[in-house]
Amino acid sequence: MARTELPDARVSPRFAGVCTFGRYPRLEDVGPAGRPVDWAIFGVPFDGGVTFRPGARFGPRAVRDASQYLKRYHLGHRVDVCEALSLTDAGDAPIKPYGIKATLDAVAAWATSLADPGTRLMAVGGDHSVAYANIRATWERRGKPKGGLALVHFDAHLDTVDAVWGESWGHASPFRRAIEDGLIDPKAMISLGVRGPLNTPTDLDFAAKAGVRLVSIDEARASGAALLAAYVKALGGREAYVTVDIDVFDPSVAPGTGTPCPGGLSANEGFALLRALRGLHLAGADVVEVLPDRDVSGMTAMLAAHVMFEVLALSAS
Amino acid sequence: MARTELPDARVSPRFAGVCTFGRYPRLEDVGPAGRPVDWAIFGVPFDGGVTFRPGARFGPRAVRDASQYLKRYHLGHRVDVCEALSLTDAGDAPIKPYGIKATLDAVAAWATSLADPGTRLMAVGGDHSVAYANIRATWERRGKPKGGLALVHFDAHLDTVDAVWGESWGHASPFRRAIEDGLIDPKAMISLGVRGPLNTPTDLDFAAKAGVRLVSIDEARASGAALLAAYVKALGGREAYVTVDIDVFDPSVAPGTGTPCPGGLSANEGFALLRALRGLHLAGADVVEVLPDRDVSGMTAMLAAHVMFEVLALSAS
Amino acid sequence: MARTELPDARVSPRFAGVCTFGRYPRLEDVGPAGRPVDWAIFGVPFDGGVTFRPGARFGPRAVRDASQYLKRYHLGHRVDVCEALSLTDAGDAPIKPYGIKATLDAVAAWATSLADPGTRLMAVGGDHSVAYANIRATWERRGKPKGGLALVHFDAHLDTVDAVWGESWGHASPFRRAIEDGLIDPKAMISLGVRGPLNTPTDLDFAAKAGVRLVSIDEARASGAALLAAYVKALGGREAYVTVDIDVFDPSVAPGTGTPCPGGLSANEGFALLRALRGLHLAGADVVEVLPDRDVSGMTAMLAAHVMFEVLALSAS
Amino acid sequence: MARTELPDARVSPRFAGVCTFGRYPRLEDVGPAGRPVDWAIFGVPFDGGVTFRPGARFGPRAVRDASQYLKRYHLGHRVDVCEALSLTDAGDAPIKPYGIKATLDAVAAWATSLADPGTRLMAVGGDHSVAYANIRATWERRGKPKGGLALVHFDAHLDTVDAVWGESWGHASPFRRAIEDGLIDPKAMISLGVRGPLNTPTDLDFAAKAGVRLVSIDEARASGAALLAAYVKALGGREAYVTVDIDVFDPSVAPGTGTPCPGGLSANEGFALLRALRGLHLAGADVVEVLPDRDVSGMTAMLAAHVMFEVLALSAS
Amino acid sequence: MARTELPDARVSPRFAGVCTFGRYPRLEDVGPAGRPVDWAIFGVPFDGGVTFRPGARFGPRAVRDASQYLKRYHLGHRVDVCEALSLTDAGDAPIKPYGIKATLDAVAAWATSLADPGTRLMAVGGDHSVAYANIRATWERRGKPKGGLALVHFDAHLDTVDAVWGESWGHASPFRRAIEDGLIDPKAMISLGVRGPLNTPTDLDFAAKAGVRLVSIDEARASGAALLAAYVKALGGREAYVTVDIDVFDPSVAPGTGTPCPGGLSANEGFALLRALRGLHLAGADVVEVLPDRDVSGMTAMLAAHVMFEVLALSAS
Amino acid sequence: MARTELPDARVSPRFAGVCTFGRYPRLEDVGPAGRPVDWAIFGVPFDGGVTFRPGARFGPRAVRDASQYLKRYHLGHRVDVCEALSLTDAGDAPIKPYGIKATLDAVAAWATSLADPGTRLMAVGGDHSVAYANIRATWERRGKPKGGLALVHFDAHLDTVDAVWGESWGHASPFRRAIEDGLIDPKAMISLGVRGPLNTPTDLDFAAKAGVRLVSIDEARASGAALLAAYVKALGGREAYVTVDIDVFDPSVAPGTGTPCPGGLSANEGFALLRALRGLHLAGADVVEVLPDRDVSGMTAMLAAHVMFEVLALSAS
Repeated sequence: MARTELPDARVSPRFAGVCTFGRYPRLEDVGPAGRPVDWAIFGVPFDGGVTFRPGARFGPRAVRDASQYLKRYHLGHRVDVCEALSLTDAGDAPIKPYGIKATLDAVAAWATSLADPGTRLMAVGGDHSVAYANIRATWERRGKPKGGLALVHFDAHLDTVDAVWGESWGHASPFRRAIEDGLIDPKAMISLGVRGPLNTPTDLDFAAKAGVRLVSIDEARASGAALLAAYVKALGGREAYVTVDIDVFDPSVAPGTGTPCPGGLSANEGFALLRALRGLHLAGADVVEVLPDRDVSGMTAMLAAHVMFEVLALSAS
Repeated sequence: MARTELPDARVSPRFAGVCTFGRYPRLEDVGPAGRPVDWAIFGVPFDGGVTFRPGARFGPRAVRDASQYLKRYHLGHRVDVCEALSLTDAGDAPIKPYGIKATLDAVAAWATSLADPGTRLMAVGGDHSVAYANIRATWERRGKPKGGLALVHFDAHLDTVDAVWGESWGHASPFRRAIEDGLIDPKAMISLGVRGPLNTPTDLDFAAKAGVRLVSIDEARASGAALLAAYVKALGGREAYVTVDIDVFDPSVAPGTGTPCPGGLSANEGFALLRALRGLHLAGADVVEVLPDRDVSGMTAMLAAHVMFEVLALSAS
Repeated sequence: MARTELPDARVSPRFAGVCTFGRYPRLEDVGPAGRPVDWAIFGVPFDGGVTFRPGARFGPRAVRDASQYLKRYHLGHRVDVCEALSLTDAGDAPIKPYGIKATLDAVAAWATSLADPGTRLMAVGGDHSVAYANIRATWERRGKPKGGLALVHFDAHLDTVDAVWGESWGHASPFRRAIEDGLIDPKAMISLGVRGPLNTPTDLDFAAKAGVRLVSIDEARASGAALLAAYVKALGGREAYVTVDIDVFDPSVAPGTGTPCPGGLSANEGFALLRALRGLHLAGADVVEVLPDRDVSGMTAMLAAHVMFEVLALSAS
Repeated sequence: MARTELPDARVSPRFAGVCTFGRYPRLEDVGPAGRPVDWAIFGVPFDGGVTFRPGARFGPRAVRDASQYLKRYHLGHRVDVCEALSLTDAGDAPIKPYGIKATLDAVAAWATSLADPGTRLMAVGGDHSVAYANIRATWERRGKPKGGLALVHFDAHLDTVDAVWGESWGHASPFRRAIEDGLIDPKAMISLGVRGPLNTPTDLDFAAKAGVRLVSIDEARASGAALLAAYVKALGGREAYVTVDIDVFDPSVAPGTGTPCPGGLSANEGFALLRALRGLHLAGADVVEVLPDRDVSGMTAMLAAHVMFEVLALSAS
Repeated sequence: MARTELPDARVSPRFAGVCTFGRYPRLEDVGPAGRPVDWAIFGVPFDGGVTFRPGARFGPRAVRDASQYLKRYHLGHRVDVCEALSLTDAGDAPIKPYGIKATLDAVAAWATSLADPGTRLMAVGGDHSVAYANIRATWERRGKPKGGLALVHFDAHLDTVDAVWGESWGHASPFRRAIEDGLIDPKAMISLGVRGPLNTPTDLDFAAKAGVRLVSIDEARASGAALLAAYVKALGGREAYVTVDIDVFDPSVAPGTGTPCPGGLSANEGFALLRALRGLHLAGADVVEVLPDRDVSGMTAMLAAHVMFEVLALSAS
Repeated sequence: MARTELPDARVSPRFAGVCTFGRYPRLEDVGPAGRPVDWAIFGVPFDGGVTFRPGARFGPRAVRDASQYLKRYHLGHRVDVCEALSLTDAGDAPIKPYGIKATLDAVAAWATSLADPGTRLMAVGGDHSVAYANIRATWERRGKPKGGLALVHFDAHLDTVDAVWGESWGHASPFRRAIEDGLIDPKAMISLGVRGPLNTPTDLDFAAKAGVRLVSIDEARASGAALLAAYVKALGGREAYVTVDIDVFDPSVAPGTGTPCPGGLSANEGFALLRALRGLHLAGADVVEVLPDRDVSGMTAMLAAHVMFEVLALSAS
């Protein structure tokens, strides 16, 4: 019997019904067969941390809509995610639209006690600042691992800037804060996809000095899968958090984002990298920076839904 | 205490959370205070009856999304719809995407026993063929009134064609079928907004002969409110069903529909007509023909949500 | 028997087949029953005369596409245009994309000998410079009426500028040239809809001095129908040419045009003015300035198709 | 000699060159003939105060772009604004993207000392919270008139909410704050256009009690021009500030805004109201809430540019 | 002398004239030099077989429009398709919008006797269900080859599902039906591009058991050209039908389709695969699933037109 | 101290202020530290030379807008372009919208004396015909090198057609004219990216005979970087002009252009080719054929801005 009950698409078509992530049941509707829940997926409709185009607050809604077309079986990993995992849409986290830090605190507090103790959390943004909150909650829930969690980071930007306009909690800074707070172990962090013009070359210094493995977009494209496979192996059984800024993808496949940068990954390049993480022990995950008002024919939200599915399939395989 | 519990927009912003019509609770979440339910709103994601552009199957989803921005108090009628009425999102009706008649039967059967016996039904389409199903269910639920229900019909088209391409159940025919089946009393039917080129002038004959009051778009604009007020008065306490094809509005305010026709109502003209129905005893209602893939900046879905709100406010006042 | 043979929409749906204006037969396919042809409709895919946004060269194609949804019976005039008139799509006029004057000469020469001698011409633009060519051809074909043709002009701009950037044949100048050349009688010209900021108030002087009746947008809205009815009456049997720049309509109903100006006519206001021309003896007509790349959900092209239909219905009634 | 030097559109076409508001010179380029400056127009690219859709930070840029097509002569008021007034684009005000109050303070401080002492200020938003800043600066510059400035307010919303999500400086509150701070005299304030569902009827209480003249959308449409003419007369020579939230217009003409509400003004209805203010002694003005990512074919930004022009023409006539 | 007469683009620009596929003559206009016709291209404006987004009924019209920009010489194959082949636009097949099987029967019957006996058929969809009809007609016309035709299938989905919602003729099933009916030889069928989540792994069983060669998207990308070249060689002189579901391409290059799936082919990857078929003996072909309402800047229709051209060039080389 | 002063993005956000290319100072604002200017970037808002879709006249404006998000440091070349180079936005060149040759003459004359004698020129189109003008000016300014400048040409089309519609100065002909006039040395010209259907194979003859190195799109993709590196080496110190038609990129990354052709470069493929020019001695450059009305979410203009940045970074490294 499947751990997640899905509406039968042959009875209730994918264009019917109230939208939840992947058509998975709402948390309040999960029955005994779904307990304990493996993954609680929740939205964080917050974009108060952006430095350019706002609007990612509508990202969770768009991803819920796009994810109606997800099916359950992953051809590559040969796994049925609904068979293997109990999945749920836990709704949206509480946010404080006018305050970044207040929002991160509220999200983290809420997420820390969400669902069952062993449930993993997947946050759907919202801007990248919200990753900090989910990482903090995940770190708490996974027993506050010493030195912090390992981190796999897909992004066009490194997001370790100290502060922008005097604010240290925006979407350019989450991993700097997470490293400083001991939630992430920089020596177990790998970041793929950085590209494009920089304000200053020193923007990479903090991460480099802290020991983060920086993989440029060209390197990611050429040998990223092998690097990631080696990274997973090196981690051993250590748990890692996966964070995917949708702008790691090229604007042609992910136009609906706030700071797009030409030259990014194609969808299949991105999927290949995610699949190379096979064997990773997942602690939690997020998919962020989907901005529907800049999207085109819903393709960015659809891609984000597929990223969500890839992560779940990793977890199930 | 309010009959409908809404999330507090000062806590959970309108851009947060899973979308239900008007943010009203799902039927399965309605508590004792909401029983019996006054109005069950449901989607009918079906567009198999169209003669031109398909895609209205995505209408319910778009209206759910747009309706997040509805508030509860109606300035004109001076009524708080959530205070006065117990409202719910009953989800989407079961449909058979490949069969019009089979869908109408399934929707009607499902709707007939929905919620509490006295609950009124509001269907959100989907193409106009689905009106037949909701009218049939409503007629059943309201005690099969002899001679049929009264009908207020807003539309650019009369929808009383006998058959198109040999099919008698499409979106050009619902009121012909409803009249033939005794669900609607043509002498108590008023139709406003017909305009644009016709295939043949005989397309109006069936309705005219049956006694339907046809109000052209120009007449509707000039004196529709007075006509409707007189119509309501003449009905006395008799119950009427209200059906709104969003294409009664001009393409500039409702581009997202399948057979748009220039020269329709502006939003305020339409609202004025709906408000002129004050005093009407409502049996049920529908809002149909929202086609999101042709919509522009979501304005058609937003307008449909406002139409839904106008009907509810009528009911509450 | 109908003078124009249309594909039966109950056999060949409106979304099927190669697009001709109104689904009317191509000129080469008109049979004996359609001879002599009453109206030859042709495109002029030229936008070399614009002073701001180009792209109206794709206008004829867009109007052909949108006109597939036109039906044949006009409710207001109670006339079936295909029953009453032989209509044809004569294809597109020959144009010289790099030369305005060369294009106007080529179009005029081609149009002068098009179809049957008594056939009226309706040009679909293209920018407004092409009106000159069709007026010249019409004037020739209608026997070079002394003093020129009467002219009914709907437009947000007066289009009687002498020259722009040294060029005297652009879309700001057609009526100045037509008046100077004796093709149009300014004292029998009425222009409705001028509005918006002007470069200089003297832009109106030429027309005013020549005797053109200038009707501002406010006057057109308030009393245009009466003015036009009086105008028609005053003309007696004299023939008039009707030219419709789609930008006489508001950008909300006609966004797809090159120099939109807020504050224009709604669709129903425009239709009312056109219908007020009932009784006019039509010499020819054009609909111009549809710019598909700026259009929204095809609404401007659809509106232009309806304008075309209104003019044909005038002719048939 | 004109007070404002414009590039000659017959030499440098409107699609050429760096965009400034109305093609007016940048403040640093204004020569002696333009001194003292009559109106300094500046952008406030801030949307941190919104309660629904963000993105109005890109409004000033879009209005600059759209305003390239403005011409200089106003047909209704028979005035050439560049002849009569020295106009300038003063650039964008300094903003603090992460702080509402900090932004308002910075904008107000900057604006208070902008250009010449007698220069009027026109702010282009940005969300409506920025009106407070320009009102404060205007009040300072106009000699801190006792009791505050008169205010003409066009808006779908009253914007006198006390606080949202605990924040008292957002776009729902500017006039409450301005009244409390004595910058605006509520008894000399008139607000036109409020419509749509409310959270609670008490949202109107503060303004009503303070003596604000509330003109509903229906009243505005029916008799707004007369009301405003009377209002201007009653003011005598007292100076008034004009604030225009673009959402006072219908979504069909102004889709590009954050909280659109069906049933608003058409463009011509809005222009008629603005023109009815003839004779008003202007202290300052703003046009706000243009959100380009939701705009359609640039029509909202174009409309906002025309509103800007209408206000300048009022000032010049 | 060329077998196909094209309008000279130096006389009649590509933006002029009534649109036919590739600007090729309509079948009724083909002169003696064009007889016998080599390829008749026709539309099938039918989308009644879809399981998700409808609208492909407008596909043929969009491809006709986009194909105006096709030129005649193929650089890779060094062939002028109009020189080598007589090509025609045969219009649209007769369809029954409310019945899938009835449509397939009508299309097949019509296509079977189209043009000259040796003429190959290329169908432009419409949804993928229509492939069955063209395959059936092709099989008939090519002498009912024993065991069925060979098939080259490009698609994100395998389309061999037995039935959806009780209907066995939808767009998920054409090849199952064609194999069952002996029209296609599964052992001579190769399918490239399957990817994305599946409802169940058993969806691939029918094809696998029947002997279809399944080439995953990754395999197609890595070595598809070699596989296809080998496939062509193995076929010997046996004739094959080529079917291209435009969703084999990535949503970034083909957003305008009903069931897009991220991770598909880029345009050049697709062209390389098609060119690898050089030497194939073509029996017929189709290009399907173009959905213009979801398209972006016309790029999907343009791509489909290029696919059409690639197939014709294969045939000519 | 930096040679180019940029507004500090931590003070004046990228969404604030009047747009200049890259936020570089206007030429009239360049201070002594910026003298002599290294690169003057200017727009050429002209599209009178197109053979298909017009609208590129709005290209410079769109690129200015998109370039606000450019930063200054190039990760690949490890260079800060603002540190190394004095950059300026010189505004738009004077154009004659109705005359191609007149425009080219005016642009060339204006550009020849622009800024300082040693300043390099980068033109932002506008259609490709404008390249001729900038090449002519560059050739003059660089001392009329004998035999002409070397040329690196990225384009889907070869642009060496003799004439179209009798006009020899359109966007299909600039390099033919430049070669004939001795401004370009065809033996030092390399052209990459030609693809798609041709009108006739002889379209390539002129260039081939003249000695131009033609690199097909497949060759460019497979080994273009090596070819270009060899080309640079072979040039020695000879100066080359770089011209980039944005349609060398695939329509998925550059939809906003007038004659898109599927199968082009991805963004990263294009960047790799541009970076392979490291060591090139740049004489001048252009980026052309950005057509905003066909663009999608601004991605084409953004890509063009990055191309501009890549060229500047080449120059700085």
